[in-house]
Amino acid sequence: MTSRSVDFNSDLGEGYGWWQHGADEAMLGCVTSANVACGFHAGDPAIMRATVARALHDNVAIGAHPGYPDLLGFGRRRLDVAAPDVRDYVLYQVGALAAFVAAAGARLHHVKPHGALYMAALEDAAVARAIVEAVAEHDDSLFVYTLAGSEMWQATLKAGLPVVAEFFADRPLRPDGSVVMFQWWEQFTATPESVASRVREFLATGSVTATDGRPVSVSAETICVHSDTPGAALIGPEVRAVLDESGVTVSAP
Amino acid sequence: MTSRSVDFNSDLGEGYGWWQHGADEAMLGCVTSANVACGFHAGDPAIMRATVARALHDNVAIGAHPGYPDLLGFGRRRLDVAAPDVRDYVLYQVGALAAFVAAAGARLHHVKPHGALYMAALEDAAVARAIVEAVAEHDDSLFVYTLAGSEMWQATLKAGLPVVAEFFADRPLRPDGSVVMFQWWEQFTATPESVASRVREFLATGSVTATDGRPVSVSAETICVHSDTPGAALIGPEVRAVLDESGVTVSAP
Amino acid sequence: MTSRSVDFNSDLGEGYGWWQHGADEAMLGCVTSANVACGFHAGDPAIMRATVARALHDNVAIGAHPGYPDLLGFGRRRLDVAAPDVRDYVLYQVGALAAFVAAAGARLHHVKPHGALYMAALEDAAVARAIVEAVAEHDDSLFVYTLAGSEMWQATLKAGLPVVAEFFADRPLRPDGSVVMFQWWEQFTATPESVASRVREFLATGSVTATDGRPVSVSAETICVHSDTPGAALIGPEVRAVLDESGVTVSAP
Amino acid sequence: MTSRSVDFNSDLGEGYGWWQHGADEAMLGCVTSANVACGFHAGDPAIMRATVARALHDNVAIGAHPGYPDLLGFGRRRLDVAAPDVRDYVLYQVGALAAFVAAAGARLHHVKPHGALYMAALEDAAVARAIVEAVAEHDDSLFVYTLAGSEMWQATLKAGLPVVAEFFADRPLRPDGSVVMFQWWEQFTATPESVASRVREFLATGSVTATDGRPVSVSAETICVHSDTPGAALIGPEVRAVLDESGVTVSAP
Repeated sequence: MTSRSVDFNSDLGEGYGWWQHGADEAMLGCVTSANVACGFHAGDPAIMRATVARALHDNVAIGAHPGYPDLLGFGRRRLDVAAPDVRDYVLYQVGALAAFVAAAGARLHHVKPHGALYMAALEDAAVARAIVEAVAEHDDSLFVYTLAGSEMWQATLKAGLPVVAEFFADRPLRPDGSVVMFQWWEQFTATPESVASRVREFLATGSVTATDGRPVSVSAETICVHSDTPGAALIGPEVRAVLDESGVTVSAP
Repeated sequence: MTSRSVDFNSDLGEGYGWWQHGADEAMLGCVTSANVACGFHAGDPAIMRATVARALHDNVAIGAHPGYPDLLGFGRRRLDVAAPDVRDYVLYQVGALAAFVAAAGARLHHVKPHGALYMAALEDAAVARAIVEAVAEHDDSLFVYTLAGSEMWQATLKAGLPVVAEFFADRPLRPDGSVVMFQWWEQFTATPESVASRVREFLATGSVTATDGRPVSVSAETICVHSDTPGAALIGPEVRAVLDESGVTVSAP
Repeated sequence: MTSRSVDFNSDLGEGYGWWQHGADEAMLGCVTSANVACGFHAGDPAIMRATVARALHDNVAIGAHPGYPDLLGFGRRRLDVAAPDVRDYVLYQVGALAAFVAAAGARLHHVKPHGALYMAALEDAAVARAIVEAVAEHDDSLFVYTLAGSEMWQATLKAGLPVVAEFFADRPLRPDGSVVMFQWWEQFTATPESVASRVREFLATGSVTATDGRPVSVSAETICVHSDTPGAALIGPEVRAVLDESGVTVSAP
Repeated sequence: MTSRSVDFNSDLGEGYGWWQHGADEAMLGCVTSANVACGFHAGDPAIMRATVARALHDNVAIGAHPGYPDLLGFGRRRLDVAAPDVRDYVLYQVGALAAFVAAAGARLHHVKPHGALYMAALEDAAVARAIVEAVAEHDDSLFVYTLAGSEMWQATLKAGLPVVAEFFADRPLRPDGSVVMFQWWEQFTATPESVASRVREFLATGSVTATDGRPVSVSAETICVHSDTPGAALIGPEVRAVLDESGVTVSAP
């Protein structure tokens, strides 16, 4: 375990105009990489600038977090977008965020699709390829965060971009290892203790207890806690403490 | 006149989704620089990619054409946006378009604000500075298109960015040289002949007949014809012919 | 045939702000009922008022044409909206349009979902029920336009609202009677002659030639020609001529 | 004082999708009329339905709270909308909300414009007339909430609609009686005590201390506390207690 390294990421900057969302401040104090909303499902130019500034201040690596154009549904509803349009939506959002990162004197670090787009890319090869194509067009040294073994994983590997496998510490896993991303609260109560316990289990055994009570193997190099999971402001620091105590190096890839 | 050079520009890519707008194909065949909508007043990621590709194919220099976030009003209505937000809206849009230009292997050439944002920047020093700040943050070698002598002109000069003075060939000018940008059709009938005649007058005398019938001095290095002026598909080529016959070099700055 | 009556409908008012769409003027001269966009997939308050006024001037019955909240995709992309939200989106749009109809001194006549929402309601019973519930909440005497035998058809009947079966004269039908609504142009060339021929076939035989070259039975009391089918301005009057010559009464239900 | 009656109103339902906003629950427990956002500056169909249901449950009169189409600016930025478009935007929003109120078995009670539209209507007679025209088109028995003596007040009176004068208890007043609506926190600290004190002053003297420390006369039949004023959940009940103790009848007009 001594040589092991793990990243800790969170989705941030997901307010819009006057609307606030998520425990950004608390999360920026404990994560090593931030996925910043780009204006399609959440986020706006002013929030993007502010989030980038705070992330850099806290030495947090900055990734783009592009989503479907659905403010009303927060990008959490599947939208049947043709693959070429997916590619263009992603390039647009990545380019917009990259401009704020560059203006702050830094470089974009990774891309992680949001919500329903993230989920679609796990199973739909055309969507996955479209996203990877956009990332590669922009900068083929960017890391792509996704689930190990998914279509998105395969597409990223095939395109030769660096892929980072993700573990959602605050979401239940099904026996087959898939993630319950929506209505998840019906199957898991996220508390600092329950999430930390899962992270400990993952670090110690490489497995996590699934919804059937049995362990399911998880391959991951980054751990995610959502900034809008209720109690995130307490969950994040607790997870970070577990990581720090575990002896792994906690840093962005 | 032999050493003189002039640019010919047009606002393009101003459809949205299924909605089309403007005589893009005809204009790309005769202009030397294109101002491409960036998604806030018009334009969407797919249209931006397609417009960039066609512009490059036609050797047309590509500029960003950022506007207010007002699809419903096509960015032609004044919106009281605070200066820091203006800056962020512009950087967002410039960054998004630049990503498509870079993905196509080219570089962004200039920035020209759209509609009501263009007009606001002529008279409001804070708005002008905010726009220039965003452009400079992105790339301080980008040209800024605006009216000679305006607040936007002053702000660009002060920031040390290259400024390009513009003549709106298809819009009436008031006796003080200001442009009638909206409801302009009540004061001027744009035809290939009427617009070409103004361009000839400008090239020969450095003046243009204003709405009072008298000549007003115009200082400009780029000439604009809007792609959505009725008859643009015929007006554009006619203006280009006038430019070609005049002996000036027609090229982007 | 003497006692038979048929309605002729079209989707109208589908521009947005400065963007125009569809052959509204030509269609209003020949249809008996208009499905007016309500602002979610297309249409805006000013267009809604103008479309209602022209429809009333032409004695055309006015229906609401609610869609998914997707201006960028023109409501032609499936969006996974939860049923209660579908209901609320429909009630919102119907209420907004009804206000313009009432302000003009008339009454709303029917509701026809748009694009991907129309298609979803054909097969998804929960979506169908949600739409019908919204219509019934507003006014349970409103006609609902949909395909005979669909889930939407069943839901409308079950709720006790009057249902009107629809035949899409400008779209290819599959051998099972289902409609090719998107990318339809790959399987059918819509001309005044080809569409009129299908209408004649339908009137004479109650069947229409499907994509396999064989006749498929069609049960319908209203015939639709889309205002944005290329050539609609000529197709519409041709279809109306066929209807007038056929001896059926052409009128809204 | 025995025969005096006063209304207590608040702007509610101003979330959007996943974004929440304002102390709605607390305010619905103490106000007598609610101004419900209609989707242009805030609010969405699901929130509108839920807010209407809770208001009716609490016996609170329901008004429409239409705003400029500016989610990003929460309708708090002036947008230069032509008067006919203002009229149509208002009718659209009033119609949409009225549909939810009618579906719940009730009737819309009043209309109060939101934010920058409210402010524009105070001084711009064309905007004021456009709003009143839309309200009258929908239902000329609806009350209109605005400032006494304003252009909106005049326009409502002239149109023969019932007008209700408003006092913003949680906003500073200038010596001329005008309201500091934006950046107000620089001139006034809203606490349960400070707002209650102003309400007591208003009830006892018909005047309120302005920003210059002197009393300014206020004519009002309804008192507003914003649901998003920091501390609103405590301010609202405190104001209601003051009203109840004062002996005035607290009820919607």
